[in-house]
Amino acid sequence: MKYPTTILNLIECFKRFPGIGEKTAERLALSILDFDSETIELFSKSLKDSKTKIRRCEKCNNLSEDELCEICKDKTRNKDVLCVVEDPKNVILFEKINVFDGYYHVLNGLISPVDGINPEDINIASLIKKVKDDKIKEIILALKPSIEGETTSLYISKILEDTDVKITKIAYGIPLGAEIDYVDSLTLEMALENRIDISTNKNS
Amino acid sequence: MKYPTTILNLIECFKRFPGIGEKTAERLALSILDFDSETIELFSKSLKDSKTKIRRCEKCNNLSEDELCEICKDKTRNKDVLCVVEDPKNVILFEKINVFDGYYHVLNGLISPVDGINPEDINIASLIKKVKDDKIKEIILALKPSIEGETTSLYISKILEDTDVKITKIAYGIPLGAEIDYVDSLTLEMALENRIDISTNKNS
Repeated sequence: MKYPTTILNLIECFKRFPGIGEKTAERLALSILDFDSETIELFSKSLKDSKTKIRRCEKCNNLSEDELCEICKDKTRNKDVLCVVEDPKNVILFEKINVFDGYYHVLNGLISPVDGINPEDINIASLIKKVKDDKIKEIILALKPSIEGETTSLYISKILEDTDVKITKIAYGIPLGAEIDYVDSLTLEMALENRIDISTNKNS
Repeated sequence: MKYPTTILNLIECFKRFPGIGEKTAERLALSILDFDSETIELFSKSLKDSKTKIRRCEKCNNLSEDELCEICKDKTRNKDVLCVVEDPKNVILFEKINVFDGYYHVLNGLISPVDGINPEDINIASLIKKVKDDKIKEIILALKPSIEGETTSLYISKILEDTDVKITKIAYGIPLGAEIDYVDSLTLEMALENRIDISTNKNS
């Protein structure tokens, strides 16, 4: 005795998601039986739309349903600054804090020789071209503090060495509200290395 | 800036699964963008099939694509014994161990006054009718060791009090391979209460 074919197919689909194993896939597939018809209809349609409607913004590689994404369409933003992120999820994160008003550039991955991801596999060439053509004044590298993130940051700054663009990197350190006791040693090392001067005397 | 509508819809759908929050829903929705067309097609079709093809077996309430499920269709099984389970997932679990050769009865829930689930909300009436009509010799209650499971077991045995059916309950105790130190106190209490006599002398 096995599940009916439809359930087995659903389990099979759920198992293809990263981080979802046999047991969770089974649980999720069975939950679908409790969904109402509208949800099933919306789910099924959105799945198909994800293949047909979703594309990458031609300017920044962000997710979009049009040629340009909502941000690139917006002419009121600061065109001097470009925030370089790994994936579209990061764009949303930055937009939520509502502080950055420049444009983005989505790399769609990070350089990782171990996984066979080379600079030409991610959107670096288009970034370099954009920086030069659009006379960008500053690029902010907002990549995760990992070997891959650091390698990518290093690679980009090396390539842009002989241009006038200012290259900055977001600060890595102790997150607000965290207990220093529980912060890992690498983060603590970063926090120490990137310490900032707050002395108010003129002799410092 | 938000995600494109299609992504927002997918996130919305994933959030309807039990145990899936905003963050996980977002992660799952974005993973779909990496799926190939065949997977999307299969997923979308299976979702629709879950509404149109999947039904409940008319005899045992197990999941089925026909009037009777695969088990109820099988005439070679032992029709004297009925294993009563909470949901179709349990049927699969029992079938996997390949030890039980009787039929099943899926309650589709457990009595839980706190959640407003009364005996008439689950498949108890059909169980009682089946026990009487089919002259079942033994029903094995294989419900989970919780207040709801115990309440349901008690209710069923009370209702069948004046019939000849033998009512048994699967054993609750320490799982094989588990360290006694790590077993919770309720399980230990159950294990102690349900201890079995293994003495070999005749005086015991």
